[in-house]
Amino acid sequence: MAVSGGGSGAIYGGIEAGGTKWVCAVGSGRGPEDIHEPTTCPPADPQETIARAAEFFADNGSLAAIGIGSFGPIDVRRNSPTWGWITTTPKRGWARTPLVATLSEALDLPFAFDTDVNAAALGEHRWGAAADLETFCYITVGTGIGGGGMANGKLMHGLLHPEFGHMRIPHDRVRDSFDGVCPYHGDCFEGLASGDAIAARWGSPSDQLADESVWQLEADYLALGLLNMICLLSPQRIIVGGGVMQEPSLLPLVRRRITKLASGYFDTPELREEVDDYIVAPALGDRAGVLGALELARLRSRQRAI
Amino acid sequence: MAVSGGGSGAIYGGIEAGGTKWVCAVGSGRGPEDIHEPTTCPPADPQETIARAAEFFADNGSLAAIGIGSFGPIDVRRNSPTWGWITTTPKRGWARTPLVATLSEALDLPFAFDTDVNAAALGEHRWGAAADLETFCYITVGTGIGGGGMANGKLMHGLLHPEFGHMRIPHDRVRDSFDGVCPYHGDCFEGLASGDAIAARWGSPSDQLADESVWQLEADYLALGLLNMICLLSPQRIIVGGGVMQEPSLLPLVRRRITKLASGYFDTPELREEVDDYIVAPALGDRAGVLGALELARLRSRQRAI
Repeated sequence: MAVSGGGSGAIYGGIEAGGTKWVCAVGSGRGPEDIHEPTTCPPADPQETIARAAEFFADNGSLAAIGIGSFGPIDVRRNSPTWGWITTTPKRGWARTPLVATLSEALDLPFAFDTDVNAAALGEHRWGAAADLETFCYITVGTGIGGGGMANGKLMHGLLHPEFGHMRIPHDRVRDSFDGVCPYHGDCFEGLASGDAIAARWGSPSDQLADESVWQLEADYLALGLLNMICLLSPQRIIVGGGVMQEPSLLPLVRRRITKLASGYFDTPELREEVDDYIVAPALGDRAGVLGALELARLRSRQRAI
Repeated sequence: MAVSGGGSGAIYGGIEAGGTKWVCAVGSGRGPEDIHEPTTCPPADPQETIARAAEFFADNGSLAAIGIGSFGPIDVRRNSPTWGWITTTPKRGWARTPLVATLSEALDLPFAFDTDVNAAALGEHRWGAAADLETFCYITVGTGIGGGGMANGKLMHGLLHPEFGHMRIPHDRVRDSFDGVCPYHGDCFEGLASGDAIAARWGSPSDQLADESVWQLEADYLALGLLNMICLLSPQRIIVGGGVMQEPSLLPLVRRRITKLASGYFDTPELREEVDDYIVAPALGDRAGVLGALELARLRSRQRAI
């Protein structure tokens, strides 16, 4: 495929750099259907994975910019000497990886860099379940738990970037004696409610568990996490994606539990009869991340053109 | 005092409408020292308290606008039919109080309306500990716990407004068998760590408690709440005010505990050796709220002038 960079016909590159899957794609950034040649691979060691991504983009014509939504923690502070790095991740071999710098050696292009969840949030804002919202959360419940979103119309950043997965929630050890799987904190939100936690607690991957008590416990933990998001951020909507949410009973259980936890205090229909429109699945499904990465690239390119 | 409204010499009114104290003041909005005639009264029933505030402003010349920072929950959605109301507060007699509408009957002026903690955050942003920050939190630990702040340069709003006090945190009932004081949730953050919770747990008001174990437990709860703020919002700084923080040992204990909870995962000096500059007391002390209310009024007036 031969495509040209720059101008109104510009083509962008996007990488969803996930912990268990990398997705690379090129596209015009005009709509969710306008992606060419997406390619997916499991991440091997950093050198090999990054080299494979660089090769993909080198083969796909002249790009205006590349956007990356990466698993974290990452450094998103533009003025930091380690901007574009994956930092203290527990993922074996990936701590302190200069992701953008390594890609830049092969591809002389402008890069945008953000968390995988902020990229997915951006995709949902442009084309999906968060269109026209100023303040919303995007949370992914997969092997780990990540979260991001927008506050006052911009992607959430600050000191670093949000780390929803590592908040602390109540853990009733009488009901659930499981210690949690987080290597840093044990029974933080991710330590109790991620796909890895479910698998370790019950001895089977989450997609092989049908028992109602598995999903009731999971829904109760997720609802506690979502309630804390509501208390701290007051989002206009919460989008919940990730592999664990493939269990069809889970989202309805979470919604029911949230309305109970919020009962009375939050005087708003979104936390009562309209909860089905308040806590929702991603409209872009599992393409939210790579589409958001393309949008990051488009915005980066526009920013440079001003 | 005779002052004139409008133009560059404009005078504004500010109300810090707290749960235990109302502060009314007028001022030019030019600096923290430029407040005239602040007056303080404990809130009686809504009619009487609001009437007294209206009288104060009527006696203080021609104002360009009035800003109100109120205890909550309140309705801050400009297009809502109940904008300007105190809504589901458990404070006796104050639920469903049309605060702004009642004041408007006596004073035909533009009003700005936000939470007491967002007003205090705005004051600290203009003149205090949050100058030049885009994303920060302000939390007050008094009879209750409230929180607000800015995200991406604007005060935090969304579906409603943040309700930091009602997030859920771990509660180890072996160490602390106390059930919590929140009438809605029992052992939420406010239910465990507010001044009312301390007094109910130990049988004395917090300013009469000197035992080290009292403040160690309190610091541990506050640190859990602050850690969740960091995980969900990634603030560039956290300002902690309120009457409970008058205990001099408390802030250092909170800082020490936070660095332990964050250990290793958050790779940033603010959560290690620079924590004293990261978790701080309000620079404006107990005047942050009323100063922020004046600033709310000034911004409202400017907005109308555009």
